[in-house]
Amino acid sequence: MKEIAIGIDIGGTNTVYGVIDRKGNTFFEGSVSTNDYNKPKDLATALHRIITEELMHLEGTYVIRGIGIGAPNGNYYNGTIEFAPNLIWKGVINLNQIFSQIFQVPVVVTNDANAAAMGELMFGAAKKMKDFIMITLGTGVGSGFVANGKIIYGKYGFAGELGHTIISQDGRECACGRKGCLETYASVTGIVRTAQIMLAKSSRRSHLREIHKEELTGKIITNAARKGDTLALEIFDYTAKKLGFSLANAVAITNPEAIILFGGLAHSGDLLLEPTRRYLEETLLPIFRGSVKLIPSELQHQNAAVLGAAAIVWKEFEKKNYNASAYS
Amino acid sequence: MKEIAIGIDIGGTNTVYGVIDRKGNTFFEGSVSTNDYNKPKDLATALHRIITEELMHLEGTYVIRGIGIGAPNGNYYNGTIEFAPNLIWKGVINLNQIFSQIFQVPVVVTNDANAAAMGELMFGAAKKMKDFIMITLGTGVGSGFVANGKIIYGKYGFAGELGHTIISQDGRECACGRKGCLETYASVTGIVRTAQIMLAKSSRRSHLREIHKEELTGKIITNAARKGDTLALEIFDYTAKKLGFSLANAVAITNPEAIILFGGLAHSGDLLLEPTRRYLEETLLPIFRGSVKLIPSELQHQNAAVLGAAAIVWKEFEKKNYNASAYS
Repeated sequence: MKEIAIGIDIGGTNTVYGVIDRKGNTFFEGSVSTNDYNKPKDLATALHRIITEELMHLEGTYVIRGIGIGAPNGNYYNGTIEFAPNLIWKGVINLNQIFSQIFQVPVVVTNDANAAAMGELMFGAAKKMKDFIMITLGTGVGSGFVANGKIIYGKYGFAGELGHTIISQDGRECACGRKGCLETYASVTGIVRTAQIMLAKSSRRSHLREIHKEELTGKIITNAARKGDTLALEIFDYTAKKLGFSLANAVAITNPEAIILFGGLAHSGDLLLEPTRRYLEETLLPIFRGSVKLIPSELQHQNAAVLGAAAIVWKEFEKKNYNASAYS
Repeated sequence: MKEIAIGIDIGGTNTVYGVIDRKGNTFFEGSVSTNDYNKPKDLATALHRIITEELMHLEGTYVIRGIGIGAPNGNYYNGTIEFAPNLIWKGVINLNQIFSQIFQVPVVVTNDANAAAMGELMFGAAKKMKDFIMITLGTGVGSGFVANGKIIYGKYGFAGELGHTIISQDGRECACGRKGCLETYASVTGIVRTAQIMLAKSSRRSHLREIHKEELTGKIITNAARKGDTLALEIFDYTAKKLGFSLANAVAITNPEAIILFGGLAHSGDLLLEPTRRYLEETLLPIFRGSVKLIPSELQHQNAAVLGAAAIVWKEFEKKNYNASAYS
């Protein structure tokens, strides 16, 4: 009988899941479109069906020790998502209750970026670190802060919202209801907004003009930049400047050994990393210069948040007695 | 034989010292002007003379278990002050070596605001808290972040520099060589700069006009505001806006239970606290609204940093064998 944990990363666009053992080996993984499910219960039901079917196809007997869920505004203490601006589900949603009822196993919920930080800490780029910052660049900007070897959850479980620190007063409108949050610039959505604004403002030639502005995506902008499109490169430079600025302020607070980038935009490789590193260094308080590594996730192809959410299961439920569901 | 620890808080203006027992009782305390000492060794020699003399006058025998020093840019790991913009001593200064040679007892050094955070945690407003932010408003703006019950020192011991997060790009010039740091607005020096600028810009009546602009101090502005001087009140409002903005961003990162204000400006009571609380609430990401206490230090009259630096001594050296100096 093999013990497994289910890791789930609920994102504004996709929900990724994986079935993972104690050592971080992934048995199988997959994803569904988050917005296909009007209610979180529908998502849980669909995932239960998909995962149990896939488990049946594996050889041997499997026992699910628990489910770890990383989600935007995921609250570690309450097992909830609370007012996540990038999800279609509004208000307070008790993911712990919903998933534990359907799967009949214990559930732990956390912020998606905290889950990614845990993944990186257990299996990735932060294996030997005690102080680092995890940044997830997806539909939004998530962050997980690790200090003294522990994730900072904060008093009420909502710590790690670097994406909702304001970097420009009276800046771009944010889904959170305020203006100028880092997320409005450095997320995939943010880089698309930058592209739309720059295309409208300048008359410079660009392959991006061949795309309808509503159809621009992070991928299209990345591909254009890779081919040397100067406007696309400028879009990356602008994004890097905003991100580097924000990271310099974060470094002043927690003095991390490294900042690890994960997600859609981090996939763009040196297009974003190299200029962000430059702006970060330029902006840093002198005592921090040259001391902070800005590196990509080592779990890009595995999904750090899925691995991390599963890792939290192993950590949380290791010494507890509880019911586990067996599939053979 | 009574065991004591010496707590020292080195500030840009004054250096405060106290002789403290394990329970936080202060036997005596005092202060000297930091800038009277061209070299840190001269300060250490003077403090050694003053403190040993005062110890001689006490009844009984005393053994100094160690010295805790809080200082701007104080580094916990290295025992040094490194490039502190608000001190006349430049470069890297090995306080641990200097003080341990002169006093012949073990020395522990930390950031002045971390020391204050430790004082608040052990003896003050944060006694039952695991997640809070300590803000010291003096010549500069210091901060100490506590998460999961521990001070965040960071990888290299320089964490907690909220005063050097940039809140306004192309803002006021800072002693650190950059522009727009919180410290240029929310420190005592910052509030004086605000007063000078506002007095020059407006022609409104104010008692502050009776003072030469180079002679304005935080105390004078506070007193004018207490008497209802509308320009002085506006200066406090402007300062509160900047501070509230910065604190809202800090809350998004560590989600503290409370923010504790200490130091010169915090003494001004509700003049600063009330508007800062209002701006903080206005600026906070919705999920944090109404959940963060903004409170004054409970150790205002004792000096949290002196108590905290001494508290670190008790924590650090409790289980170690070392030489201690006895005075009777």
